[in-house]
Amino acid sequence: MQRVSTSKAHGGEQQVWSHASTETGTPMTFAVFLPEHAPGETLPVLWYLSGLTCTHANVMDKGEYRAACAKHRVIFVAPDTSPRGDGVPDDPAWDFGQGAGFYVDATVAPWAASFCMRSYVERELPALVAEQFPVDMTRQGITGHSMGGHGAMTIALRDPARFRSVSAFAPIVSPMNCPWGEKALGGYLGEDRAAWREYDACALIDDGAKLPELLVDQGMSDGFLIEQLKTHLLAEACERAGIKPTIRLQPGYDHSYSFISTFMAEHVAWHAERLWR
Amino acid sequence: MQRVSTSKAHGGEQQVWSHASTETGTPMTFAVFLPEHAPGETLPVLWYLSGLTCTHANVMDKGEYRAACAKHRVIFVAPDTSPRGDGVPDDPAWDFGQGAGFYVDATVAPWAASFCMRSYVERELPALVAEQFPVDMTRQGITGHSMGGHGAMTIALRDPARFRSVSAFAPIVSPMNCPWGEKALGGYLGEDRAAWREYDACALIDDGAKLPELLVDQGMSDGFLIEQLKTHLLAEACERAGIKPTIRLQPGYDHSYSFISTFMAEHVAWHAERLWR
Repeated sequence: MQRVSTSKAHGGEQQVWSHASTETGTPMTFAVFLPEHAPGETLPVLWYLSGLTCTHANVMDKGEYRAACAKHRVIFVAPDTSPRGDGVPDDPAWDFGQGAGFYVDATVAPWAASFCMRSYVERELPALVAEQFPVDMTRQGITGHSMGGHGAMTIALRDPARFRSVSAFAPIVSPMNCPWGEKALGGYLGEDRAAWREYDACALIDDGAKLPELLVDQGMSDGFLIEQLKTHLLAEACERAGIKPTIRLQPGYDHSYSFISTFMAEHVAWHAERLWR
Repeated sequence: MQRVSTSKAHGGEQQVWSHASTETGTPMTFAVFLPEHAPGETLPVLWYLSGLTCTHANVMDKGEYRAACAKHRVIFVAPDTSPRGDGVPDDPAWDFGQGAGFYVDATVAPWAASFCMRSYVERELPALVAEQFPVDMTRQGITGHSMGGHGAMTIALRDPARFRSVSAFAPIVSPMNCPWGEKALGGYLGEDRAAWREYDACALIDDGAKLPELLVDQGMSDGFLIEQLKTHLLAEACERAGIKPTIRLQPGYDHSYSFISTFMAEHVAWHAERLWR
């Protein structure tokens, strides 16, 4: 594992690391913010999964999480959204291939060999982070934006015991029911829609998965809301399942980091309250 | 004037505008954050001048000023650092030409025709902003980073009555005494060093300019500190002149937006206290 950069910020360190991933077979880069802490002390960790086209850098540059993470003493880890590089399969579209891993383990050629972002963020990266950084792995929270909100919710719904807190910014709540999701799941998993259900938050809830709590913010001027994000499907699935999420529809906000950064501090505080409990 | 983009953030609007500048003879782009405000209400304005290579976008993406500006109800305006475009003279170096206007009015060909960033930020942009946005021009503050810290201090020292508050992040305090400054002032103004003095904060102070207050933050792990920034020269000039600046040497911080964003909220609060007085 190689440190790409480190920079003091808000009393802690914003670092970027690169490592050879066995899951993807490529170098993978991630960002980690370490608040100031005593030698030997461990802190909770909040995972942040990014949306389509993003690398680790988007939230690092624009997410405005460091002041809140420093205040609440939470480590923040942001992985990339797919394998990348000349030898990695790609697609000319911005919503498929590199930058659009969709947090699945692909089963269809040529994607299956390297597009294993589910296993990467569920197993490989947590093991690495647990080994290399002062994290208390009994205190994990997860969040994400758009495709990453889908990732955060589906990972948590499949393994709720791992997380004390789950939230999302403008998530794709049901990939099986929107163009981005149908393209990605069809392309990476093939046409058998039964195999898609474990990658769809609403389907997982309908199939019995539970979360004790869930915080979702959604901008009402988000141009992707009606066709892609469909927040109401999540509200309806939770209602059917007796889950009581906190879904906040935020007037005037769009899909960008202007929206994310506005509510980031509140999400970090919400996670911290549960992570430090 | 054309609105390039607008996005709701922290209850206000982060906007980007483009206009045809008479000073530079080119289109110029700037960012403005408007906190939530009542119809007809005016708010103080804080000018932010960026460093070498930057456009309006760097601080907009990485500066973390919006939460503080929303809280303290201060409009934040960030111009570009030079004219740009195919017809504009340039230099292959990153520290001269496009992206490196140095807040001077160039007098040497080919720069003199368009590199008029002093007049642009002193006169043209303020007139435009006063006309187009709900600003109270009796309540202006100015700050900036590196080359922009030099810009903020020299503009304020030449016209202290215009500003109620002046601060800087890691400023170039004496361009006459560092490689970046000697290259820029020599290139844009010619070799007569007497003409450089109005573009050097320390020389302006030695020549009698005064500021009632000044806040400067400087990272002590800033790789440019010793050769380019030379904060001690400012402290010494202020000492000679009886000016009492607040210069804070911040251990461990570098020259990047990690440093700027860490102290941005404190700078905005410091300005707001003086702007709303």
